[in-house]
Amino acid sequence: MTDKVRTRSNSPAKTGDVQSQPSSRRRFLSHGMAVAGSTLAAGVAASAATAMAAPLVIPESNKSTGKPMPATEYGLPSKFEKHVVRRRTDVFVNRQNWSDWSMTPLQHQPGIITPNGLIFERHHAGTPDIDPATHRLVVHGLVKQPLSFSMDDLARYPSVSRFYFHECSGNGLTDWLKPASNTVQQTHGLLSGVLWTGVLVSTLLEEAGIDPKAKWALFEGADGSAHIRSIPIEKLLDDAMIVYAMNGEALRPENGYPVRAVMPGWEGNTSVKWLRRIKLGEEPWHFRSETARYTDPMPEGKWRQFSMVMECKSVITSPSGGQAMKGPGFYEVTGLAWSGAGKVRHVDVSFDGGKNWREAKLEEPIMDKCLTRFKIGWNWEGGPAVLMSRAVDSTGYVQPSVQDLQKTRAIVGFVQHHNAIQPWIVSAKGEVSNGIGKA
Amino acid sequence: MTDKVRTRSNSPAKTGDVQSQPSSRRRFLSHGMAVAGSTLAAGVAASAATAMAAPLVIPESNKSTGKPMPATEYGLPSKFEKHVVRRRTDVFVNRQNWSDWSMTPLQHQPGIITPNGLIFERHHAGTPDIDPATHRLVVHGLVKQPLSFSMDDLARYPSVSRFYFHECSGNGLTDWLKPASNTVQQTHGLLSGVLWTGVLVSTLLEEAGIDPKAKWALFEGADGSAHIRSIPIEKLLDDAMIVYAMNGEALRPENGYPVRAVMPGWEGNTSVKWLRRIKLGEEPWHFRSETARYTDPMPEGKWRQFSMVMECKSVITSPSGGQAMKGPGFYEVTGLAWSGAGKVRHVDVSFDGGKNWREAKLEEPIMDKCLTRFKIGWNWEGGPAVLMSRAVDSTGYVQPSVQDLQKTRAIVGFVQHHNAIQPWIVSAKGEVSNGIGKA
Repeated sequence: MTDKVRTRSNSPAKTGDVQSQPSSRRRFLSHGMAVAGSTLAAGVAASAATAMAAPLVIPESNKSTGKPMPATEYGLPSKFEKHVVRRRTDVFVNRQNWSDWSMTPLQHQPGIITPNGLIFERHHAGTPDIDPATHRLVVHGLVKQPLSFSMDDLARYPSVSRFYFHECSGNGLTDWLKPASNTVQQTHGLLSGVLWTGVLVSTLLEEAGIDPKAKWALFEGADGSAHIRSIPIEKLLDDAMIVYAMNGEALRPENGYPVRAVMPGWEGNTSVKWLRRIKLGEEPWHFRSETARYTDPMPEGKWRQFSMVMECKSVITSPSGGQAMKGPGFYEVTGLAWSGAGKVRHVDVSFDGGKNWREAKLEEPIMDKCLTRFKIGWNWEGGPAVLMSRAVDSTGYVQPSVQDLQKTRAIVGFVQHHNAIQPWIVSAKGEVSNGIGKA
Repeated sequence: MTDKVRTRSNSPAKTGDVQSQPSSRRRFLSHGMAVAGSTLAAGVAASAATAMAAPLVIPESNKSTGKPMPATEYGLPSKFEKHVVRRRTDVFVNRQNWSDWSMTPLQHQPGIITPNGLIFERHHAGTPDIDPATHRLVVHGLVKQPLSFSMDDLARYPSVSRFYFHECSGNGLTDWLKPASNTVQQTHGLLSGVLWTGVLVSTLLEEAGIDPKAKWALFEGADGSAHIRSIPIEKLLDDAMIVYAMNGEALRPENGYPVRAVMPGWEGNTSVKWLRRIKLGEEPWHFRSETARYTDPMPEGKWRQFSMVMECKSVITSPSGGQAMKGPGFYEVTGLAWSGAGKVRHVDVSFDGGKNWREAKLEEPIMDKCLTRFKIGWNWEGGPAVLMSRAVDSTGYVQPSVQDLQKTRAIVGFVQHHNAIQPWIVSAKGEVSNGIGKA
């Protein structure tokens, strides 16, 4: 049974935009743009008798009992989905894998939530195995009353659950001027969508009492790298969270179990994992993570510090690098857009390398600093094409091209904060590849 | 290190409602209602020197590298969270476990999304192991053109991703008149929150062309029970979905892999899993699942058929049965509310068995036919209490008591559609237990 996706070769349709609206969905069939769903009769001609017989035959799974249910179980994906996993970078081969990262398979992720088993990882000294019964979070420094919180203590405070995107500032750093990798998992997979649950940092700071002199706070992790960052107090009093759960269950070990910070919309490394202390002070500390790392080279040879906000960005996840078109016809082109500065307002998509743009449909709910799913119909005639998406956020910021970014930034070494437009090249044969620097 | 949750015993506070607003959060400390966060100084007195020393000592996890990252990985929960699992009923001991159900640990789930590993299961003949490469979905009967869809075909159609609650009509059937189980996992755990992704049924029906005579459709699964239901065409043209992904990844085997129906807001069994065909007809088929099962006994001795909508309901998940209060003081009381008829409009909570009610805060986003999280502050003085929640939906429907439901329904046998108010009894010692029929 190997039904090919059938297309109607007598289709009069032109390459172009097809809206995903009920009224135009009828056009899949009536206007001859249907690509999926072989008719029972036509199935005979297209792919032999088994294709027609299949729907009339009772499948084997109807004739036997399936797997029984265990008394208790934490469920796992189907054995047929083993290819959908986090992957370490395939670009750099690390000499050791304690300071490493793994990437989310965005090409397989619909919607705006990443399952916990697929959320990207980044750590500097491996994943610690912390017992929540003994772990403590301390708030000290310029506070009226230093406090120590057990995990049970934290659970007693008023909680918030909020949907946010989560992105590493290094997302895309291998692919600035020419392709180093091919799949969207490798170019953009340091990105996930998460419903975080925890306590607002402001709740704990108000409990401790903030000394008016306090303007910054350090957040330090209990991992082998003692990862540490300085955060301005404005962020802490705004939307910063102390998080103990993600997507409806406890944090995963690699994502900070039992407790971490989340700085919504900011580069991932500011959301310190395995959090053990918050110390308030008057000025930033200028840690190595703020001087030698997580800074951006500028054209005049200086380096920009504390560029925490992840600017507005988008990427088409389907079709994307490494995928293959399945013959001419209708495709739903879809991707993700996000902004650390607010909501996604709209996304434009080009099918001709940026000459013409059409507005994609944004799927509800559209939330602040959260992944937003965009979709646009496309009738691919079979020729070469270059697909791009360009997002605009609620501040009016427009996602730039690499050329735009080069006007204000220097691209030397491992450059963070790559939020430029991602081109995907579709060959005449339908092979999709990374078009960065080419298109 | 066994810090006790400390409360200020000189608190002048009365049992009552504490709003979770920034302005009143200050009152945790200043009004003496703080319950969590022992001061460094006070920690000495409260729980010995280690409690004070802990924050100043570098934890062991800071001194060594953690677990390195594998090349590819599907992540799993921490070993310290092994108690958070789906559980089969602890009330009935089945003679065989092919027709069975397992329940979501709602007492451990924050937010409105259930992780895929914890989504409740219900099947009638075990979980089939279906190869997506050979599986087909057929649309036939009163259509202009019968169609057969491969899984690749379905992926080509315009998709939608939507957050919905998912509930079995049997949720709560053990606990109508007296407690048969104690935890919210057992009383309400045939309930999950899911972001479903797939194709609208209306898209596929329009592709096939609906014969004007068609008023109902049967949906049949490829499992060993050949589970089958009749669905009216109005639902199919409204919001019914053909789903291939949940919470950002492919369906899990036990939840219908590779393709299922989802009837938003309707009893779970209408969302036929392992879906293999949709046949349009003029009338419902009156399958066994519509006569001997999934019907509701009425007072006059008749049985109600096709009661598909899951009416408005709510439950407090914390504190809930089997939990123990950790001394007098502030608690955030939280739970879930949902309605198959629309959005949750508000939730009232009582701390005295229904004599007085206060309005809880609903957490955004509040979505149609989706779980909604409610929260309300409570200062527990240490005496006995009876907690209840009561939800109202956008149609004005008010969640009933069991006594209310008994006026229009008969409670005999295994009665489905139990959406009554759930009382939790808090003893003077702080033990929380199921108060159904008692309070």
